[in-house]
Amino acid sequence: MVVTLTPVPGFPMVRPGDDLAALLIAACEQSGLAPADGDVVVVAQKIVSKAEGRYVDLAQVRPSARAESLARQVDKDPRLVEVILGESQRVVRHRPGVLIVEHRLGFVMANAGVDRSNVDPDVGAEPVLLLPRDPDVSAARLHDLLSAHFRSKPAVIITDSWGRAWRRGTVGVALGAAGLPALRDLRGRSDLFGHELRVTETGFADEIASAASLIMGQADEAQPVVLVRGLSWPDAPTPGATLVRRPDEDLFR
Amino acid sequence: MVVTLTPVPGFPMVRPGDDLAALLIAACEQSGLAPADGDVVVVAQKIVSKAEGRYVDLAQVRPSARAESLARQVDKDPRLVEVILGESQRVVRHRPGVLIVEHRLGFVMANAGVDRSNVDPDVGAEPVLLLPRDPDVSAARLHDLLSAHFRSKPAVIITDSWGRAWRRGTVGVALGAAGLPALRDLRGRSDLFGHELRVTETGFADEIASAASLIMGQADEAQPVVLVRGLSWPDAPTPGATLVRRPDEDLFR
Repeated sequence: MVVTLTPVPGFPMVRPGDDLAALLIAACEQSGLAPADGDVVVVAQKIVSKAEGRYVDLAQVRPSARAESLARQVDKDPRLVEVILGESQRVVRHRPGVLIVEHRLGFVMANAGVDRSNVDPDVGAEPVLLLPRDPDVSAARLHDLLSAHFRSKPAVIITDSWGRAWRRGTVGVALGAAGLPALRDLRGRSDLFGHELRVTETGFADEIASAASLIMGQADEAQPVVLVRGLSWPDAPTPGATLVRRPDEDLFR
Repeated sequence: MVVTLTPVPGFPMVRPGDDLAALLIAACEQSGLAPADGDVVVVAQKIVSKAEGRYVDLAQVRPSARAESLARQVDKDPRLVEVILGESQRVVRHRPGVLIVEHRLGFVMANAGVDRSNVDPDVGAEPVLLLPRDPDVSAARLHDLLSAHFRSKPAVIITDSWGRAWRRGTVGVALGAAGLPALRDLRGRSDLFGHELRVTETGFADEIASAASLIMGQADEAQPVVLVRGLSWPDAPTPGATLVRRPDEDLFR
């Protein structure tokens, strides 16, 4: 089994209200990359958020007393902290320069994914971009529309790049998924010598997200869409939300 | 840029004292996959540990009082806990069924990587396998020997699969690396609109490890060696140890 990771070139700037599925279909067709059964279309979170118009203009934000206080402790703009808190269930850890929260969808991550970089200044005086409203819903919608158009069932993953506990450097993660098992269950399979495997679940969609992140780039050569070919999976699809560890099973929040 | 992930087939069972570089060279040549400049040879930790003879026979282990006590709390074999503690600097978290430690090399991980699965019963009555003595040294040695043989400079990554805080499922991580920047520094690069990027470092070797893990498999179809082709990097090489966050910079141990 050889797996290929191919950037889908020529993707345009995405603006609020754009039909992202139509843009994806056009980019795939222009580059001769029609997604087939078993292919995975990996889409950077930012273009999903932009199409969904998930902008907030900091110039319009009035920070609460709580945001003002936390902003002093983390050395960030209090209006940005107000937006982050609005996207969060709670603060997990903070220190100067660092604000780790539990996002409203359960993701434990820096700044609730609220981002200033690569945000088109035309959409507001001081725009920031939030995560998609529900990345699993966005992925399922793209999966349905791509499937209908290409008469195949390509899986879809919406990805972001996150820092991690204990390890330096960001890696790609799956915020949302459709058409594949985000988490693969290996329970019951045996190892080379017939012992039952003790590592029983793999973060399949997260590993695909990290693979795609290798060629998405982070800066001026950004490639927001990557086609992954050659994988296979016997298990039934599960959404990206299955990758979020429940708080009562988590030892680190 | 298209990236390919290709399993190197026909890898034999590895035994203590085997010359792993020679086995790698033979497997590459038999499958017509001569590693070239810019290629990355990804090697599963287990075959490195096996070649290095990193076995302990639990039948020979006498647990300390500390191991006995901790074993009751985590519901594990006290002899196994003794071996885990011997590979660890300290216990980070534990509860029934779970023992997260700081490995002597700084890795925060379950069970210090001590593993019972896929361990050849011929090497002892109740063998377990430890991580390689120093995965960066092992990677550098393979890098040197492959480079000399193939007259090219393929990078080498030694990988494992780890669980994570906050997310379910294991993902591939780089224990050791040679010939590429384990951590890529994007500081000073600007985004699409000319702002300086705020995400400044990516876990490059970890993302490659996760990508390779997609086809390494975990069980009977295990593929312990994967060739990654098509990546490029401008930065100078750094070892896998650069991915370990220093304790004083870490908010979660």
